Amino acid sequence: MGLADDAAVLEIPPGRRLVATMDTLVAGVHFPVDEPPEVLAGRVLGVNLSDLAAMGATPFVYLLSVALPATLAPTWRERLACALGVEQERHGITLAGGDTVSTPGSVTLTVTALGTVAPGQALRRAGAVPGETVFVSGTIGDGALGLLVAQGGLPHLSPAHKDHLLDRYRRPRPRLALGARLFGLAGAAMDISDGLVADLGHICRASGVAAVIEAPRIPLSEAARSALDTDDRLWSTVLGGGDDYELLFTATDMDRVAALARDLALPLTAIGHVTATVDDGSTVVVVDDQGADATPTRPGYRHF
Amino acid sequence: MGLADDAAVLEIPPGRRLVATMDTLVAGVHFPVDEPPEVLAGRVLGVNLSDLAAMGATPFVYLLSVALPATLAPTWRERLACALGVEQERHGITLAGGDTVSTPGSVTLTVTALGTVAPGQALRRAGAVPGETVFVSGTIGDGALGLLVAQGGLPHLSPAHKDHLLDRYRRPRPRLALGARLFGLAGAAMDISDGLVADLGHICRASGVAAVIEAPRIPLSEAARSALDTDDRLWSTVLGGGDDYELLFTATDMDRVAALARDLALPLTAIGHVTATVDDGSTVVVVDDQGADATPTRPGYRHF
Repeated sequence: MGLADDAAVLEIPPGRRLVATMDTLVAGVHFPVDEPPEVLAGRVLGVNLSDLAAMGATPFVYLLSVALPATLAPTWRERLACALGVEQERHGITLAGGDTVSTPGSVTLTVTALGTVAPGQALRRAGAVPGETVFVSGTIGDGALGLLVAQGGLPHLSPAHKDHLLDRYRRPRPRLALGARLFGLAGAAMDISDGLVADLGHICRASGVAAVIEAPRIPLSEAARSALDTDDRLWSTVLGGGDDYELLFTATDMDRVAALARDLALPLTAIGHVTATVDDGSTVVVVDDQGADATPTRPGYRHF
Repeated sequence: MGLADDAAVLEIPPGRRLVATMDTLVAGVHFPVDEPPEVLAGRVLGVNLSDLAAMGATPFVYLLSVALPATLAPTWRERLACALGVEQERHGITLAGGDTVSTPGSVTLTVTALGTVAPGQALRRAGAVPGETVFVSGTIGDGALGLLVAQGGLPHLSPAHKDHLLDRYRRPRPRLALGARLFGLAGAAMDISDGLVADLGHICRASGVAAVIEAPRIPLSEAARSALDTDDRLWSTVLGGGDDYELLFTATDMDRVAALARDLALPLTAIGHVTATVDDGSTVVVVDDQGADATPTRPGYRHF
């Protein structure tokens, strides 16, 4: 519909608000330059739908712009289109427009994802209050560790563990079902894309609060635990590496969170708590099992 | 609103349909690499709003993604932001989100423009029928000739004529007021971005018709006429060069079109007519003042 015209005409379901987000992935910055198009399709849709999940929104349609160098293999574009078709179906979302252009530079993919939410029921970053518990969905650090595996790192991991981490990096699972259930339960919510510490910092600054993360409570996959067992410096990757695309939220009702986790068959783990702002101006402190400060110095930083 | 969150939450005016379009401009492909950010701001918003105009839509909000090389001057980004502010105000549209990323490649700007239209009142390409007159707004060819001036061409033109053409290239005027008045009057409509002949071809193919353009009737600015007087090979630029961002539409009611032109103080000029499809499979034929075939061979092609 509408793709033969200058723009798509769309009917928003009655009584719903529109939620709009836009994210760009650039080869050599957000993914390795030799990443196959099948991986990019999953990632570019996944990261945008994760933003909708963070708002408690239901996906509606997306628009896609691709800028491609002339040096790409002729089949590359077809493989991308095919893989996007698979990802669309997985997420129940359709393409409503976009642009395809050539570039003398790097492969650049931009998605605008449009979703809908009931009026007043969007999740916000600015709702955390002291005393709330901080929760995360799923496991943390797999995406960033998976990127290390993709780059030839973590050679001592078992093949099965490598595959697990790679898959978690390559195919973000936007937590849409969880996001849609958090209104009225979560004080604040967002998705973890920059890294656990950096993103909890975003919630804290938006809410005018601080937070403490207890490192031993951070949920880890077996593969991540195995990686940390061989090199505990990887903790900085887990805490700051990004690409988790899990949801991070604050709440007080532990029983309802536990019931929701059972309903969704998705771990929701308490990893810390919200505090009043502290004198030294820090927002997020990580403590180890001795209660000692284990906060990484440069959360959320990464470059290829 | 919403810029502190993962996505913006937007209320579509009740009873309106959403219209969504997305266009990307790449340095070295869609504009010269040394184009100032002030020009890019006007162009990237203008080309997207022109797509909304072509649908008869009213602008609502836009999202912007910018991919910027680290080599840009530090003030470049601030100049872009400032210029976008000016353009937003001109068009009565606000920024609802987006992304800023670094790139090892070229400056790349992507806008998603969202507009609204009354149900069933969007303009379409697929409505032209034989016997209708083909109209264009404003003047044709100025944008493409202005690009030549920007590249150091047309040295014999007067400074005033050069300025006129440059301005027309640099600052597209999306014909939003016209687009909003064409429902019920135009059979088919679109904006001219690829070039007059190429875009009329799009209407013809979507509608299953053909069309004849009478070259002497194409409305030209004084500056364009002056350029053609010195070199009539520039006709291929006028017919095929693109970047006009005028509206192209078909209609039968000459009086209503004339009244609309007076209302809007915008020339609306009959340049030809729609015919049944022809045996040789061509869609658009241009004839000169002798009725001889003057169709350019490669409409819509351009590369820096």
